[in-house]
Amino acid sequence: MDTALRFTVLLLTLSFGAGLQLNYIDDYEEEPKEEDVSADSKYGSLWPLPQKIQMSEISFKLTSSSFKIVDAKESSAGPSCSLLKDAYRRYYEYMFGSSKRQQLNKRRRTGPSELTELQVLITSPDSDCDGYPSVTSDESYELSVDQPYAVLRAPKVWGALRGLETFSQLVFEDDYGAKSVNATQISDFPRFAHRGILLDTSRHYLPIKVILANLETMAMNKINVFHWHIVDDQSFPYLSRTFPQLSQQGAYHPYTHVYTPADVKMVIEFARLRGIRVIPEFDTPGHTQSWGKGQKDLLTPCYSGATPSGTFGPVNPILNTTYDFMSQFFKEISTVFPDAYVHLGGDEVDFNCWKSNPDIQKFMAQQGFGQDFSKLESFYIQRLLNIVTSTKKGYMIWQEVFDNGVKLKPDTIIHVWKGTQLQYQNEMANVTSAGYQTLLSTPWYLNRISYGQDWRGHYKADPQDFNGTDEQKKLVVGGEACLWGEYVDATNLTPRLWPRASAVAERLWSAKDVTDINDAFNRLSVHRCRMVERGIPAEPLFSSFCPREYKEFTS
Amino acid sequence: MDTALRFTVLLLTLSFGAGLQLNYIDDYEEEPKEEDVSADSKYGSLWPLPQKIQMSEISFKLTSSSFKIVDAKESSAGPSCSLLKDAYRRYYEYMFGSSKRQQLNKRRRTGPSELTELQVLITSPDSDCDGYPSVTSDESYELSVDQPYAVLRAPKVWGALRGLETFSQLVFEDDYGAKSVNATQISDFPRFAHRGILLDTSRHYLPIKVILANLETMAMNKINVFHWHIVDDQSFPYLSRTFPQLSQQGAYHPYTHVYTPADVKMVIEFARLRGIRVIPEFDTPGHTQSWGKGQKDLLTPCYSGATPSGTFGPVNPILNTTYDFMSQFFKEISTVFPDAYVHLGGDEVDFNCWKSNPDIQKFMAQQGFGQDFSKLESFYIQRLLNIVTSTKKGYMIWQEVFDNGVKLKPDTIIHVWKGTQLQYQNEMANVTSAGYQTLLSTPWYLNRISYGQDWRGHYKADPQDFNGTDEQKKLVVGGEACLWGEYVDATNLTPRLWPRASAVAERLWSAKDVTDINDAFNRLSVHRCRMVERGIPAEPLFSSFCPREYKEFTS
Repeated sequence: MDTALRFTVLLLTLSFGAGLQLNYIDDYEEEPKEEDVSADSKYGSLWPLPQKIQMSEISFKLTSSSFKIVDAKESSAGPSCSLLKDAYRRYYEYMFGSSKRQQLNKRRRTGPSELTELQVLITSPDSDCDGYPSVTSDESYELSVDQPYAVLRAPKVWGALRGLETFSQLVFEDDYGAKSVNATQISDFPRFAHRGILLDTSRHYLPIKVILANLETMAMNKINVFHWHIVDDQSFPYLSRTFPQLSQQGAYHPYTHVYTPADVKMVIEFARLRGIRVIPEFDTPGHTQSWGKGQKDLLTPCYSGATPSGTFGPVNPILNTTYDFMSQFFKEISTVFPDAYVHLGGDEVDFNCWKSNPDIQKFMAQQGFGQDFSKLESFYIQRLLNIVTSTKKGYMIWQEVFDNGVKLKPDTIIHVWKGTQLQYQNEMANVTSAGYQTLLSTPWYLNRISYGQDWRGHYKADPQDFNGTDEQKKLVVGGEACLWGEYVDATNLTPRLWPRASAVAERLWSAKDVTDINDAFNRLSVHRCRMVERGIPAEPLFSSFCPREYKEFTS
Repeated sequence: MDTALRFTVLLLTLSFGAGLQLNYIDDYEEEPKEEDVSADSKYGSLWPLPQKIQMSEISFKLTSSSFKIVDAKESSAGPSCSLLKDAYRRYYEYMFGSSKRQQLNKRRRTGPSELTELQVLITSPDSDCDGYPSVTSDESYELSVDQPYAVLRAPKVWGALRGLETFSQLVFEDDYGAKSVNATQISDFPRFAHRGILLDTSRHYLPIKVILANLETMAMNKINVFHWHIVDDQSFPYLSRTFPQLSQQGAYHPYTHVYTPADVKMVIEFARLRGIRVIPEFDTPGHTQSWGKGQKDLLTPCYSGATPSGTFGPVNPILNTTYDFMSQFFKEISTVFPDAYVHLGGDEVDFNCWKSNPDIQKFMAQQGFGQDFSKLESFYIQRLLNIVTSTKKGYMIWQEVFDNGVKLKPDTIIHVWKGTQLQYQNEMANVTSAGYQTLLSTPWYLNRISYGQDWRGHYKADPQDFNGTDEQKKLVVGGEACLWGEYVDATNLTPRLWPRASAVAERLWSAKDVTDINDAFNRLSVHRCRMVERGIPAEPLFSSFCPREYKEFTS
């Protein structure tokens, strides 16, 4: 007794590329009607869809015993570029890992229609091999799959990483299980420079392995920013060298539920090797309950009438000690996290505690703020921004800071997260008309779940859909899918995030006119089985099967 | 920027029983307000709550080197009862598995406040050790934890299994990590005899390991029925010895996506060892698209005007071959599945195809059915029920069969799944006033998800809340949580089901007046961490942590 009557069922045979076969066993009515799909995608299982693709019917075979990914002779990234070596191994494993591996056999004669090499050519004199990705990193690449060998050409290693993913997505199994790839020409680059995912490690602690597995999956989807909402009211898992009491007192557990400096380093390096930036968020002055446990006098004492109630509110903005603390703290952060940006939060500040505190009231009067507590908030944020600027970092902030009229550096990125579609579109228009760069998240709160294929709604949202000039549209640096942590931890985070975040990944990478939702359904269905085959428990879009189902409970 | 403002956070220290500690780091307002919780449960982490509990402050220690679970001397289940031996090992592992195991040391002097034995005493002359559980199985037990040893007394092995789970839930770690248990007297039995979970292996194939892991979890929640919705429109994974073409043609894949006779046997035995019945559902005449692929002429050819359209509708009820097939098929089913009941489905029959078919129309006229196709449906079902009756099985059916006035055996169980609260309550009243037994599922469609703590709604529903006499209420045999398979497979099924299904488990086991939702929240939060510790990825209820988080991606 399933209320959803009869369905179009998608039988996925995991054969990518031109050999892709999607069969449907019936075409009965469905709810919603929209979920009816009936055709293969001519783009196989490519996800996100590259900017320009030419595919031919001609196909080549690949064998694990002969195929190699190698540096092209003229490449500026030589044998010492471990980022690429690591990537070659990873993609070789993805392509051949699940089939019976044959020994490399150098003397074997290769067949006439066999592809034996993918040559990777970094064309810019500086490959960026040892650098960190940034918002200005060049991620473009050109991929030519043809005989005698395929060539992946990219100015920087970042584009090579994207192109390797694309190449691996072109490889499919033919009817006899042989790995094949069609002759193909691809020219590709991202539509937006900032394509992020926010994970929240405060509401629930996420073991490092879960974070790494999701970074791995981000790379499969060409996501290039991990927005690490690392602390919040509920817990402070970041182990600070300068203020170890913060996690000692503020983490769920001081040893088992913290991120040590070594953990953080590992996350950053794992991300770098996949072309992913790590932007930490240390949200103040609100969302800081857990900070107060390990740092005396940091939070505002709330009053009940004339006496302190014993509870605490936002960061206390009237004490010099607060700013001394923030200076030292963000100095540490600026050295631990290599990215040029820090996210400073600044959202949802509750004024009730400030209002209750007589010292704060006195300060308000002295400063001539009247009863306008947003002026006090701005006063705090302004000083914080100056502190962070002195550490040579740029900053991102949630939209309230802009809404409250705080003076911002011109390169500030305003992160839009509130309201209805109309409201966020107005906000994007206002932010960009004030000349600021902006990031969109409102339509991509993936923690919010509902029954059915909600990825379709995520897919349809476009961050440039608002009233504004071309100049304004250019100020949209991208967007982020947010998975707030109240209801997710290591048990359910990964299947809840994927493939729903993949919808956002394509919106932010592919051309604006890539909007065919049925084609997207077909490609995404196979892409999700590919993630499953690579060991990621990405959940199904609808009734279907993968040739190799997720192996759970195998350990 | 998390829209849900500040939260009461639950810090779970996995210390069960009287030593249970639940601490909350702040008491800010939440949405919904209902989620505010502020006190430990005096019942520790017991789930579902036993009928009668007396707990004392006196506590005993347990050590892995001394503690034993043994048959009591007078027990009717001797050393040959492998069901109990298997259970002793399982619960010993649950209690001591994650702590450093010490070697058994028989010569070690036990301490004065140490509990060294749990004696299990089966009191009925026939222990049921080698039998299958049934709807009339006695699951009651009495547990006395005191010195010199604890005693678990039960008429049958089924009650012993429930009592072992309860005993394991009483064991907690004290502040020094020592396993402890409080002196306790428990007298327990289920409120309802049928406490089920429906899993759907047609919309997505579920690997055997996923099914077994969920049977294991059912036992942790005292669930005693696995309703196996094994086939449906989308696929036919049941490998029939009599009609192997059904899965050969109708499964997603004839080898990798089928349940062989050996698989089915393993599922049934694994379930039996945990006191769980396996009730298969073979739903007809609708929901049978996949049957048609391997069995010629079984389905009704649909017509488009005067010619067959090439598509097929429900089972063809006018051919004798249909009934020959069903006789042979259900004869096999009756031998493969030992339970006294088979679920025959009978829901959601679409009449359009029947209407289009001229042979069916002719038959309707001959039978004097006019244009009332529910009469044709009843005609089919009636014959099917007779067939199944001849195999000596009882049957369960979805409510439509009752609604359509089909003549039913008095011991038929009507499964209610449709409508609003008012509608299903009326249906329960009608079904029971007609003298039939009934099962409720409407409020427990766990495949339907929404943001937040939807377990609270599941917890509040009560299958006896309808207008009826005491006699009618007694006809409610229980209920089932249903997890239809469109959006779940091996990647996400387990965390979606647990601990949401645990809410249903307590409703169906515990006394009617166990309705304190805050106490339930406290106990369930610790119960979910216990499931995690036992290797089950049960998702979190809310911001919180478990001392030992789920180990994902460890293989």
